[in-house]
Amino acid sequence: MTAAGRWNTLQTNRQQRLQRAAVVLGNDLQGKLLPQQRIGDCLHAVLEAGDRVCLEGNNQKQADFLAKALTRLDATRVHDLHMLLSVLALPEHLDVFDKGIASKLDFSFSGPQAARLAKLASAGKLNIGAIHTYLELYARYFVDLTPRVALVAAQSADRAGNLYTGPNTEDTPTIVEATAFKSGIVIAQVNEIVDVLPRVDIPAGWVDFVVQAPTPHYIEPLFTRDPALISEIQVLMAMMAIKGIYAEYEVKRLNHGIGFDTAAIELLLPTYAASLGLKGKIASHWALNPHPALIPAIEAGFVESVHSFGSELGMEDYIRARPDVFFVGADGSMRSNRALSQAAGHYACDMFIGSTLQIDLQGNSSTATLGRIAGFGGAPNMGADARGRRHASPAWLKAGREARAGSKQIPRGQKLVVQMVETFREHMQPAFVEKLDAWQLAEQAKMAIPPVMIYGDDVTHILTEEGIANLLLCRSEEEREQAIRGVAGYTPVGLARDKRMVENLRDRGIIKRAEDLGIDKRLATRDLLAAKNMKDLVRASGGLYQPPKRFRNW
Amino acid sequence: MTAAGRWNTLQTNRQQRLQRAAVVLGNDLQGKLLPQQRIGDCLHAVLEAGDRVCLEGNNQKQADFLAKALTRLDATRVHDLHMLLSVLALPEHLDVFDKGIASKLDFSFSGPQAARLAKLASAGKLNIGAIHTYLELYARYFVDLTPRVALVAAQSADRAGNLYTGPNTEDTPTIVEATAFKSGIVIAQVNEIVDVLPRVDIPAGWVDFVVQAPTPHYIEPLFTRDPALISEIQVLMAMMAIKGIYAEYEVKRLNHGIGFDTAAIELLLPTYAASLGLKGKIASHWALNPHPALIPAIEAGFVESVHSFGSELGMEDYIRARPDVFFVGADGSMRSNRALSQAAGHYACDMFIGSTLQIDLQGNSSTATLGRIAGFGGAPNMGADARGRRHASPAWLKAGREARAGSKQIPRGQKLVVQMVETFREHMQPAFVEKLDAWQLAEQAKMAIPPVMIYGDDVTHILTEEGIANLLLCRSEEEREQAIRGVAGYTPVGLARDKRMVENLRDRGIIKRAEDLGIDKRLATRDLLAAKNMKDLVRASGGLYQPPKRFRNW
Repeated sequence: MTAAGRWNTLQTNRQQRLQRAAVVLGNDLQGKLLPQQRIGDCLHAVLEAGDRVCLEGNNQKQADFLAKALTRLDATRVHDLHMLLSVLALPEHLDVFDKGIASKLDFSFSGPQAARLAKLASAGKLNIGAIHTYLELYARYFVDLTPRVALVAAQSADRAGNLYTGPNTEDTPTIVEATAFKSGIVIAQVNEIVDVLPRVDIPAGWVDFVVQAPTPHYIEPLFTRDPALISEIQVLMAMMAIKGIYAEYEVKRLNHGIGFDTAAIELLLPTYAASLGLKGKIASHWALNPHPALIPAIEAGFVESVHSFGSELGMEDYIRARPDVFFVGADGSMRSNRALSQAAGHYACDMFIGSTLQIDLQGNSSTATLGRIAGFGGAPNMGADARGRRHASPAWLKAGREARAGSKQIPRGQKLVVQMVETFREHMQPAFVEKLDAWQLAEQAKMAIPPVMIYGDDVTHILTEEGIANLLLCRSEEEREQAIRGVAGYTPVGLARDKRMVENLRDRGIIKRAEDLGIDKRLATRDLLAAKNMKDLVRASGGLYQPPKRFRNW
Repeated sequence: MTAAGRWNTLQTNRQQRLQRAAVVLGNDLQGKLLPQQRIGDCLHAVLEAGDRVCLEGNNQKQADFLAKALTRLDATRVHDLHMLLSVLALPEHLDVFDKGIASKLDFSFSGPQAARLAKLASAGKLNIGAIHTYLELYARYFVDLTPRVALVAAQSADRAGNLYTGPNTEDTPTIVEATAFKSGIVIAQVNEIVDVLPRVDIPAGWVDFVVQAPTPHYIEPLFTRDPALISEIQVLMAMMAIKGIYAEYEVKRLNHGIGFDTAAIELLLPTYAASLGLKGKIASHWALNPHPALIPAIEAGFVESVHSFGSELGMEDYIRARPDVFFVGADGSMRSNRALSQAAGHYACDMFIGSTLQIDLQGNSSTATLGRIAGFGGAPNMGADARGRRHASPAWLKAGREARAGSKQIPRGQKLVVQMVETFREHMQPAFVEKLDAWQLAEQAKMAIPPVMIYGDDVTHILTEEGIANLLLCRSEEEREQAIRGVAGYTPVGLARDKRMVENLRDRGIIKRAEDLGIDKRLATRDLLAAKNMKDLVRASGGLYQPPKRFRNW
């Protein structure tokens, strides 16, 4: 073999694929543009059995037309694809396994498809490489999981093939960079082809084929929480979070999870937090999707900056009108970026606060339950102590001091990682358990270790309606266990507490009840919410926020 | 104030800056292009006192023309700039503080300027915000350190303002994205202006001004190690690393530090490692700058993939001819990306191995020494356990098992973090110390906590010419301390070892000497190096590698 032939097999193979496509598509291929009805031919020409294929299935934006086209391929020609997806969101994402087109999967999150994924896995129809946190999956795209072909989605393309993503930039730049710069093939579906793009998000030189989809790509409004569904228990917990954690640690830079618990906090910033004099002192800088529930806090001047992983349906005009807060381009619309926002969540935030389904006696938590292989998305990355971090902030230093007080360890800061749960979740399932379901799931699905979302030694606080357990201050495994039992309410775990020890922990400030924080529970009513329903959010936005139909309940 | 005025102050201010520049530059401004002699006027027009200015000072590529232009500004007009730099490399990076143009600094690494930085800081001429690891600094660009103005460097621009970085893409995309999408101003210096770019790295829409510099931007060949300077002690240590760690843990995905110790390992892959049958089993996937010392391993087929933070001078043609290994664009030249490669090093690598100046009895290490404020670049990020990681590999699982054997903790993997040092460094300074200089430095420079590069609880192995200490297997602080003393040789720390305990650790395999690994020290000669000097590297590359002049010593 010649030296040249030995070292450019990827480039040569890329040329062969492009050549095959050119032959098959003939005059239907205009530069990089092909008609939608030829997408199957294009994929048949370009794909090879065993290819690693990154299909843009994001938290929100979906390359749904390309996903569907994949499912229609001839499995005798294209098979054993190794699929890479951030999020398994659509049925098509699993159909390719059912149909024998794909056989291996690496991913991050599969919320809507978790049960079917588990079934397909146990039927031997698909082999799961691993479950990742988002940034970890992208990292592997540059090391040992580089895509051979990437199928992505954008808002529009010009005739040269430049792409405009609009606010849902999300994973596209990262996927395309990994693929295009290792001699791979990039195919983009777009909603429209235009003469002049509002801005260029992906240069044409990084893209091989562009196809206009018959319908605009699907976007999931994943971060919209109707304030009408927030309970008074959640208001109480939000008050405890604000007074007992945000104010206590002066948390300015943070990320919130996706649930109603944290939506309640967002809605209490301009009311309860403001009444405590906390405006300007907490929650000013965010790594966060544009949560509609944050609108009242933004309007009240609580929020200086928000960098987003993706966008949120209906928030486009509001974001465009608030460029001091969001990251928008010269064209006026947002550019999100999940890779960079996850880096921001990991390294530039002092706190992650989110919810979970189960917490064990060591504080390990997981949303993995039997019969469902769900993955954890961004939570493991943001809910882990960033041990590479070197810059100080009051929150980080205080958490580090509390964890190391009395030890001979060298001083170091620590990230605040808060798990916020009601002691019982839906159907009266206890949130606190002796042993996580993750253990059984690991056995069922033959995983090397149980799928834990956030490890106990990264969790600093557990917050329930019964109070806050500050795990930073615990000095032994036993104290830690009792601190957890001490906020676990009437769950079996909570009932089995050592009452004397729990009272001792309370005396030492390791457990704090609402009353210890000076919070009058009678004030914990929905009246504290800055918006009580979707209409209030629209009103707060000055009519700029336009909720998707399913949330228009007035 | 109108609603619009309240929320687009950044956009309005941006327009004012652009307008001022348009007025001052007049017809000299052709689209986005301005003549080099007007750069001072442009900066005076665009900058405002107190601005956060990100000046592209990278590990390798330097926006040196813009740096010099900054130092020539009128400090009565432009002052109190808050400078953001990855690397303080050039005298100009500090001149701006000396001249009263800038007053605050956030950065990652200041190797060449560390002593002067310390002097300026203690003279009150500059206020250090914080020292960061690279990815952490970029993360803050999207949260609380967003640049108002970015001054970057690229290889070329077209007349529209699209930028081509060539292989030294480095930090440019990240800096520009953070600035351009928060209504900031982006100014790029380029080596040439051309009609058609080889490829687009930064779209023109993200760039405001382009200026052709009088000389090509400076690039530092930071990763070139002349094999002639590798000692036989280093060969011995490299053998121990390969047999005792790489083979033991089946380390396939990794990052290497910058020193001669790791260069020796690279040069032993096609000889010693191959003789152990390790080809294809270790060191196949890298997050690494294109180290010339890796050429023989690449040529031997040891290396499947390398993703790079930046490029390395002289390696351009070699990289272009090895596109199966490196990430190159359709134009044939590499695209590096420090942010994504740091993510790769953090989340997709099983091992970081590098050197340090001082290690204490807990295993904390630092390159900070008195009178020098150096920073740590990427080491803290890559030399930290990635606690958000969720995918398994044999190396990661084994490290995790060793660390947790016998404990009740939930199973979890762990990253291998190896510190490789000779017991005495230059001028017979011991590498092992009772207390790090970092403590005194923290006091001198009024840092909140001592500047530690890699924390002891992240270090898994310490490797010296005396052997390997496996800290994963230590079960108490005391064992850990004796394991460290047990490889600290004739340093005072090493001499103060408890001999019985050290022998016990050796019996248990926690300390391993060369003979315990079956390594015959007599074979540890320079003959094992796949290249013994620069000329050998050039020859191994088939003449493609073209070392910078200063390394052409034949």
